[in-house]
Amino acid sequence: MDKLTHFSDTGRARMVDVMDKPGTARVAIASGILRMQPETLSRIQAGRIAKGDVLTVADVGAVMAAKHTADIIPMCHTLALTGVEVVFSDVVEQDANGCVGIKVVTTTRCVGQTGVEMEALCAASVALLTIYDMCKAIDRGMRIECIQLEEKRGGKSGLWLRGDPGHREQLGQRGKDSA
Amino acid sequence: MDKLTHFSDTGRARMVDVMDKPGTARVAIASGILRMQPETLSRIQAGRIAKGDVLTVADVGAVMAAKHTADIIPMCHTLALTGVEVVFSDVVEQDANGCVGIKVVTTTRCVGQTGVEMEALCAASVALLTIYDMCKAIDRGMRIECIQLEEKRGGKSGLWLRGDPGHREQLGQRGKDSA
Amino acid sequence: MDKLTHFSDTGRARMVDVMDKPGTARVAIASGILRMQPETLSRIQAGRIAKGDVLTVADVGAVMAAKHTADIIPMCHTLALTGVEVVFSDVVEQDANGCVGIKVVTTTRCVGQTGVEMEALCAASVALLTIYDMCKAIDRGMRIECIQLEEKRGGKSGLWLRGDPGHREQLGQRGKDSA
Amino acid sequence: MDKLTHFSDTGRARMVDVMDKPGTARVAIASGILRMQPETLSRIQAGRIAKGDVLTVADVGAVMAAKHTADIIPMCHTLALTGVEVVFSDVVEQDANGCVGIKVVTTTRCVGQTGVEMEALCAASVALLTIYDMCKAIDRGMRIECIQLEEKRGGKSGLWLRGDPGHREQLGQRGKDSA
Amino acid sequence: MDKLTHFSDTGRARMVDVMDKPGTARVAIASGILRMQPETLSRIQAGRIAKGDVLTVADVGAVMAAKHTADIIPMCHTLALTGVEVVFSDVVEQDANGCVGIKVVTTTRCVGQTGVEMEALCAASVALLTIYDMCKAIDRGMRIECIQLEEKRGGKSGLWLRGDPGHREQLGQRGKDSA
Amino acid sequence: MDKLTHFSDTGRARMVDVMDKPGTARVAIASGILRMQPETLSRIQAGRIAKGDVLTVADVGAVMAAKHTADIIPMCHTLALTGVEVVFSDVVEQDANGCVGIKVVTTTRCVGQTGVEMEALCAASVALLTIYDMCKAIDRGMRIECIQLEEKRGGKSGLWLRGDPGHREQLGQRGKDSA
Repeated sequence: MDKLTHFSDTGRARMVDVMDKPGTARVAIASGILRMQPETLSRIQAGRIAKGDVLTVADVGAVMAAKHTADIIPMCHTLALTGVEVVFSDVVEQDANGCVGIKVVTTTRCVGQTGVEMEALCAASVALLTIYDMCKAIDRGMRIECIQLEEKRGGKSGLWLRGDPGHREQLGQRGKDSA
Repeated sequence: MDKLTHFSDTGRARMVDVMDKPGTARVAIASGILRMQPETLSRIQAGRIAKGDVLTVADVGAVMAAKHTADIIPMCHTLALTGVEVVFSDVVEQDANGCVGIKVVTTTRCVGQTGVEMEALCAASVALLTIYDMCKAIDRGMRIECIQLEEKRGGKSGLWLRGDPGHREQLGQRGKDSA
Repeated sequence: MDKLTHFSDTGRARMVDVMDKPGTARVAIASGILRMQPETLSRIQAGRIAKGDVLTVADVGAVMAAKHTADIIPMCHTLALTGVEVVFSDVVEQDANGCVGIKVVTTTRCVGQTGVEMEALCAASVALLTIYDMCKAIDRGMRIECIQLEEKRGGKSGLWLRGDPGHREQLGQRGKDSA
Repeated sequence: MDKLTHFSDTGRARMVDVMDKPGTARVAIASGILRMQPETLSRIQAGRIAKGDVLTVADVGAVMAAKHTADIIPMCHTLALTGVEVVFSDVVEQDANGCVGIKVVTTTRCVGQTGVEMEALCAASVALLTIYDMCKAIDRGMRIECIQLEEKRGGKSGLWLRGDPGHREQLGQRGKDSA
Repeated sequence: MDKLTHFSDTGRARMVDVMDKPGTARVAIASGILRMQPETLSRIQAGRIAKGDVLTVADVGAVMAAKHTADIIPMCHTLALTGVEVVFSDVVEQDANGCVGIKVVTTTRCVGQTGVEMEALCAASVALLTIYDMCKAIDRGMRIECIQLEEKRGGKSGLWLRGDPGHREQLGQRGKDSA
Repeated sequence: MDKLTHFSDTGRARMVDVMDKPGTARVAIASGILRMQPETLSRIQAGRIAKGDVLTVADVGAVMAAKHTADIIPMCHTLALTGVEVVFSDVVEQDANGCVGIKVVTTTRCVGQTGVEMEALCAASVALLTIYDMCKAIDRGMRIECIQLEEKRGGKSGLWLRGDPGHREQLGQRGKDSA
């Protein structure tokens, strides 16, 4: 836990061998926010009902990114996720720039020798990048914020919960369940 | 510029046809920050010299992600980038949580009918996710912030510069050149 | 037009060189039908409104498959599609087995040296396979039918329209425009 | 078995978690037919002997597509197939348009928590699309028909055989073995 | 020509920008040899006629690898090859270990701003690795030798021919034509 | 061991079923050499310290290639490697052409039903192709030599060591350990 295990003794990057680690049930939850003009959020919300669904496209992008994580992150192990779930919610409080947002929470699961936090983080990033892509013609200044791990279960290190009190509040019931 | 062009008249998502747009030289610059414990940054800096190079691995991940953007972002056009550049710098001022960081600035170029901002944003995201992956054993609480477009040139909309004064300052000379 | 150009003089498969062909605007339209129990179609239609959208997922799968065609079809040229569009419609007439269906029509566009019919056919196939995947728990016997090219424009051979009178009728106005 | 499990309670598409399902031996058999002019079939048959082998290329395309299924079908689980087999046969009876055809039967196997029917269906589709691609210069009107699951073994639902009597006949001995 | 252009001024790897280079017709020819036991070559030759065709599978693998080169080689530009050709021949002279071999020659073509030598070299490597894979159960000691560029045309540097007199001979007429 | 198992009874290529093979710990070690002008090696060595690191990029390329082996080699099984390691060393003795070189040794590990030698060979090939790509502007005549399996453990066939006495010496201690 106290060294950069991605480097071998000669300093060369490698994909760390996990052969001797037992396979355990793994869960990771990550989140992130895309900040945007209130007008952009209104259009996405309207589109959700009347015309099309930006969030379904983002959802699909996120699920596929979770599956492709080992292709995207160089030293990441290939693994077979058993499940991926993506939940979006509106962030209606405005930040200092008067922006509101869309929050994504991604959950990835696997039985295996390595954690699935990169899969959850990758899915969250791609969900928000996809929304950016689909709305950039009307709001190029959107900004991705707070891509972070919220929770991790399984493996030798067991349960990890983001310790930042502000984030604990956002986790609400789930945080309590894990305690 | 004032509608969500990714949806057709019947509301179905599509990859917008750009056949009639002329090919022009395109440049996009994006950036992002990975916040981490000061101890984590120190280890990366030390590793850079003595043992291995987290940032070179992140650099390679970013360049490959730029090339794969259309595979990752569902409605994004396939294009042949002419160049990708990735620059890292340390962020030494601590945030409210006492965290310092690594900033990435990515530049993508192409001659084509669509902009290359998704490629730059995707590269920046993957650069930071790769650093996270390689250092997560020592600092699982790292957080990605401020993934955003800084500059965009080419196409009908011409030059776009992030208007936030704080970011103009970071751009420095480049900002002046473009004015 | 009268030989299998995918084979060289020594009989080895190759990717036929198209360097000397001029780049022209290319359009291809393909279609296909997924036959299913009337109950399955009802559920998809209901889901479209109340819960989720099978067809948006199928739409995204189709667009991404169009972009990946050269990765999937061995001797197919890599090309940069300028646009992809996917339209679904219900097939309410029952076939001999009492099945109704969903029809997909895909349109692909490109400026280039080779046609885009494989991209349209690949998108149509994946659209229907995706619907199958998402509904197979309730109707494993669904069947894909009539994956076929409807129309092709551009290149030396110019306009091609499916000659089968039955299909001309389905094309309606579009068929008239091309005549 | 009676709901669309690909959607979560909030209606968002997801990759259904299969962590709690036991791993069992899985087999799926799918089939499909490419209808073509008799002259086209003759050329493929001749090429098979004298010059090159359209069907070997289609075979390779099918095997690779089976392995890539989770990249192509958005909500499909990644899995490690233990085997893929592709068999082609001629369909000499002419249909109403005077077309003969090539039939493909694909078999996929795996030990795992999810079925392999999408892999078999994907392989069958790509096998026929590859033949189309290689022969389209001489017969653009070819049509894919009857992409369907024939048989499925393993998992909670156990053995599934296509019930349509017409297809039972085509399965012949295999159908008897399974009964 | 006299610096490692893949590194920027700050020493970070990048994908070198080629935007200002004119597009020209590009051709590259590469070759390689797989050394094997005479018995292995005999079996491949027999298989070629009676049962299956190792070389067609290797041919398809090589064509697909040529198309995927920018996915495989980190700093390589994405480009749209116009053609790929793969030719195999037997190497009947035994080496010091009594091994014979199979030689592959790959030709790649493109109109673009960068050369296509990596595509040719990648195709040659994968052709031989594929043969290795298919025959390794009977001859695990096979060895790949002499993967090298034979010829390169187009771009600012113009014609390049491998200077090694031994290889000039192998090129035969083609070498003379280029002189 | 005495037939080409990649072909079915009807002679069609297939991905051989391994469902009935037990999963065992698998290790494979492969190696290869890139021959180059002494001046090229000097520049790489200098770059390693002062400016950038060709070998880290090659290392990343090799690790990603190991993970992508089943996408690259047509009949290769998908598997989840538990570890990949890449070691480079200088080859200072000049060959008949006055060339020195860089040697790569790759090690791949997995618990599974099939061996991981293709992954090790693929990684070694891509490591050297990546070095070629990054240095080709100064030395286009570089040549890849001796891509070969050195060692293989696990599975029914157990330990395999390259028998060639010249290679045994290179293996040194490792060879003794295995005896």
